[in-house]
Amino acid sequence: MTLKEKLKNSQILLAKRPKGLPTKENFTFKDSPVPQPEEGEVLVKTIYLSVDPYMRGRMDDAKSYVKPFELNEMICGGIIGEVVLSDSDQLSVGDKVVGTLGWQRYNVIQESKVRKIDETIAPLTAYLNVLGLTGLTAYFGLLDIGQPKEGETVVVSGAAGAVGMIVGQIAKIKGARVVGIAGSDEKTTYLKQELGFDETINYKTSPNMEKALEKACPNGIDIYFDNVGGPISDAAINLLNEFARIPLCGAISSYNRTDGDLGPRIQTKLIKSRGLIKGFIIGDYADRFSEGIRDLSSWLAEGKLKYEENIVEGFENVPEAFLGLFKGENLGKQLIKVDEE
Amino acid sequence: MTLKEKLKNSQILLAKRPKGLPTKENFTFKDSPVPQPEEGEVLVKTIYLSVDPYMRGRMDDAKSYVKPFELNEMICGGIIGEVVLSDSDQLSVGDKVVGTLGWQRYNVIQESKVRKIDETIAPLTAYLNVLGLTGLTAYFGLLDIGQPKEGETVVVSGAAGAVGMIVGQIAKIKGARVVGIAGSDEKTTYLKQELGFDETINYKTSPNMEKALEKACPNGIDIYFDNVGGPISDAAINLLNEFARIPLCGAISSYNRTDGDLGPRIQTKLIKSRGLIKGFIIGDYADRFSEGIRDLSSWLAEGKLKYEENIVEGFENVPEAFLGLFKGENLGKQLIKVDEE
Repeated sequence: MTLKEKLKNSQILLAKRPKGLPTKENFTFKDSPVPQPEEGEVLVKTIYLSVDPYMRGRMDDAKSYVKPFELNEMICGGIIGEVVLSDSDQLSVGDKVVGTLGWQRYNVIQESKVRKIDETIAPLTAYLNVLGLTGLTAYFGLLDIGQPKEGETVVVSGAAGAVGMIVGQIAKIKGARVVGIAGSDEKTTYLKQELGFDETINYKTSPNMEKALEKACPNGIDIYFDNVGGPISDAAINLLNEFARIPLCGAISSYNRTDGDLGPRIQTKLIKSRGLIKGFIIGDYADRFSEGIRDLSSWLAEGKLKYEENIVEGFENVPEAFLGLFKGENLGKQLIKVDEE
Repeated sequence: MTLKEKLKNSQILLAKRPKGLPTKENFTFKDSPVPQPEEGEVLVKTIYLSVDPYMRGRMDDAKSYVKPFELNEMICGGIIGEVVLSDSDQLSVGDKVVGTLGWQRYNVIQESKVRKIDETIAPLTAYLNVLGLTGLTAYFGLLDIGQPKEGETVVVSGAAGAVGMIVGQIAKIKGARVVGIAGSDEKTTYLKQELGFDETINYKTSPNMEKALEKACPNGIDIYFDNVGGPISDAAINLLNEFARIPLCGAISSYNRTDGDLGPRIQTKLIKSRGLIKGFIIGDYADRFSEGIRDLSSWLAEGKLKYEENIVEGFENVPEAFLGLFKGENLGKQLIKVDEE
């Protein structure tokens, strides 16, 4: 019996498209054979799997920057794994790799679809976090669109999320005053005490977001890094300084809304402030990733950048961990440990 | 009796701040002495006076890029006039000048506050229109923020307004496909037949703006030059192509609203399209005006650029002409002829 014959594969498929908030019923598990790698391919055992808010968009059947997930087909996302069979010159058995792979225990993929991980720089999970697309999203959104200057006020929503907490720390590195918005006192305390945010707001206990922001930002807002959309963003947009910038990274408060998501129109406010809003996804910066990884790695090595992860064990718990993102349960990156390192 | 003693001055003051749509009651006329120019100053007789939608914002007592008009104080705006008394080395009696002056028949101002007009290039009124802040607004908003490329689709709202019709023509010069939105068949016919717009939409007779835009823009929208805000902009934002740009010039549909101006939030759409929205006012480009004037003058001389004006006679009709802006009455620039050239 070969190694491959001993392995058991399982996949997570999109069972039906959600209306509003997703539930477990939107997912289904399917036993599946372990495929055989052919020339230039490797068989990768999933170790860590990342669940991210943006994936909610792909569950809808709507025009977007990435194709929707297909019904009854496998979902895919960020995965760290180990090469267990190789027909590749580039990757050997035992190598740890990261890439966007199918949500299954075993993927066969071309060697070029994954990046080899150097564990001497940082632990494995960092490559789905500060040294992965999460860190790069924070880096390019803040620095390319936000362009923080020393002394400016940077407000981050979803500040205790994986992207948000890196945004705040990079803004501090650049000399800005940083205000983080999050959904629990535990999170706001963490941001202030562990990451050095200047001010924080617990939006769940702040009945008037605009007043809370006014108090936290006596000099107005120069950059609003937006991960959430909705009423928090409505309030922030009312306090923009002249020539303010809004990197638009996510809108988690809107993803599950089925009511039209009405809010005050922002055109007049943007004219008055001459504000800029720009949506982006990290793929737009693919040709500059090495620049971002270089800076993020140095800041990490210098101790200027911390990251946080919340790890759930077990492939069977992937759907629930994904659903937890919309309940604001995670501090930092939400990962699932599927198998041993 | 000196010339100055023979003249009669009258001013228009802000009598009260409007709630919603302004009315004649927001303005009052006041007789006033004709001031005497001192060293470096000139006395300018108002010939043409410009009324512009942005002035509505200054009637409110709200934080904005320009100070609000003061209650019981004179309103000011774009004026073309003739020097009738001069204590300046730079300007002589008989010179025609343009500048932002008080709404009165006679202004005394420093020579540096106005620009001398060269009537050999274009008729007087062009200097409040295509060769003035109006033309420059179209030029920098479209070219600096919009950055049209050959073959792209440019949608202009308020397309039959003074700025909008110049935007559309510059977009054509740059090789774009241009779709104009206006509020009457007379206007849309003018845009198509006289200015060469590729498609037009009369929003007043289009019950479903999004469908009308879809039909007019089979390849989606690359640039949406926004003069109006409101439901027209909601529809346009639903049809943005990847990396679309929205120069935000005006939001006339919002200026008089007192209901909170609710509309669908746009964050998710901007992330999906990676769209950019940027508010601007023409003063932001003051150090590049000569570049704009140079191009606008050549296009005008080459016959590539037409402009339109709607002239009402009589200083007493200024408030009514201003109110007409919000009824969509004007094709092109709304001017008031206050005195003979």
